[in-house]
Amino acid sequence: MAEVKLLGTWGSPFSLRVEMALKLKGIEYEYVEEDLSNKSSLLLESNPVHKKIPVLLHNGKPIAESLVILEYIDETWQNGPSILPKNPYDRAMARFWAKFLDDTLAEAFRKTFASAGDEQVKAKEQVQELLKFLDNELKGKKFFGGESIGFVDIAGNALAYWMEIFAELAGIEFIATDKLPHLCAWMEVYLNSSFVKEHLPDREKLVDSFRARFQKTG
Amino acid sequence: MAEVKLLGTWGSPFSLRVEMALKLKGIEYEYVEEDLSNKSSLLLESNPVHKKIPVLLHNGKPIAESLVILEYIDETWQNGPSILPKNPYDRAMARFWAKFLDDTLAEAFRKTFASAGDEQVKAKEQVQELLKFLDNELKGKKFFGGESIGFVDIAGNALAYWMEIFAELAGIEFIATDKLPHLCAWMEVYLNSSFVKEHLPDREKLVDSFRARFQKTG
Repeated sequence: MAEVKLLGTWGSPFSLRVEMALKLKGIEYEYVEEDLSNKSSLLLESNPVHKKIPVLLHNGKPIAESLVILEYIDETWQNGPSILPKNPYDRAMARFWAKFLDDTLAEAFRKTFASAGDEQVKAKEQVQELLKFLDNELKGKKFFGGESIGFVDIAGNALAYWMEIFAELAGIEFIATDKLPHLCAWMEVYLNSSFVKEHLPDREKLVDSFRARFQKTG
Repeated sequence: MAEVKLLGTWGSPFSLRVEMALKLKGIEYEYVEEDLSNKSSLLLESNPVHKKIPVLLHNGKPIAESLVILEYIDETWQNGPSILPKNPYDRAMARFWAKFLDDTLAEAFRKTFASAGDEQVKAKEQVQELLKFLDNELKGKKFFGGESIGFVDIAGNALAYWMEIFAELAGIEFIATDKLPHLCAWMEVYLNSSFVKEHLPDREKLVDSFRARFQKTG
């Protein structure tokens, strides 16, 4: 077995988080594409609790949960650029915003998709309010962590890339971009940075896969 | 302002996490009891996103989210016992299980309380299955981190103390204790360790407050 192995799927922003962290650190790894409709026994044994990708295997020992994996990578391979900031307060802020993306914002997005009419209007307002916090956080900064890509940026790749595609397909206009200048600037810079660009999954392929899922689930 | 200030409420397991971490490290702090029906402007300014306790203020700089605060305390005051383990893999496991408690298990508990009949039976089975993972994790160990109280134990104080009270009041028998010997042994040792015992809120006071809440919400 390769020293470092990643079980993932090509279209998952959570897999991509781990891939980005590994690439950022310059770590060689073997990537294993999982078929989520027929999960490998390695995946099921490695993450018996959630049975989900991504899973990182390091010398055969499995780690699950993408944010947990990012911290593990940063602590294990201390050479190369840091993923989390060095200062404890900045680290706390990075963890706070990453959790905000995964819990608070993701739940608000989910509600927007799962509702209609007045309820959807309210859910969209909630998303807009939450995005305003991120916009505010990005004031005067290129990336969440400052001058280079770090923990919150990587955690935010679903927001930067996936959400807009998803919203377009669902016919929902999410983001009043004129009211979120710093967030929009971050998306622009992030998605166009050569490091990010070369790792994003193909837009058309992603659109097709979303479309297939929409048709299946209605 | 005191160097370290904690905004909390007496009956919250999340406040208690932070208090325990501060006490474990021997850090002096000022505790400020928040009235959640009339939140202080300090709380609202310190945690504008969630407007929730606990918030730790260190030299006036606020940190929210109890697990984020625990990591901050561990990184800032490196003297005293460690809250997280030292080894990156063990740290990843500690983060994984703390997240499991806050997300997966808490949601399964919530479903049990929010359902009835067959749905509740299913939800209780799900809780039991999840607790089995924790039981397995505790095999051959006194605490989650080994010989001394650490991150996952502190994160688990709601499970060890609050849940049983809550379940009793709601008339739900949660835990098939005979099938969870290691988890039950942990609860016993944890709740009876002098450090934990002296910081737990009074059981009767907690029961009264839960009862009042049940009556209010039905």
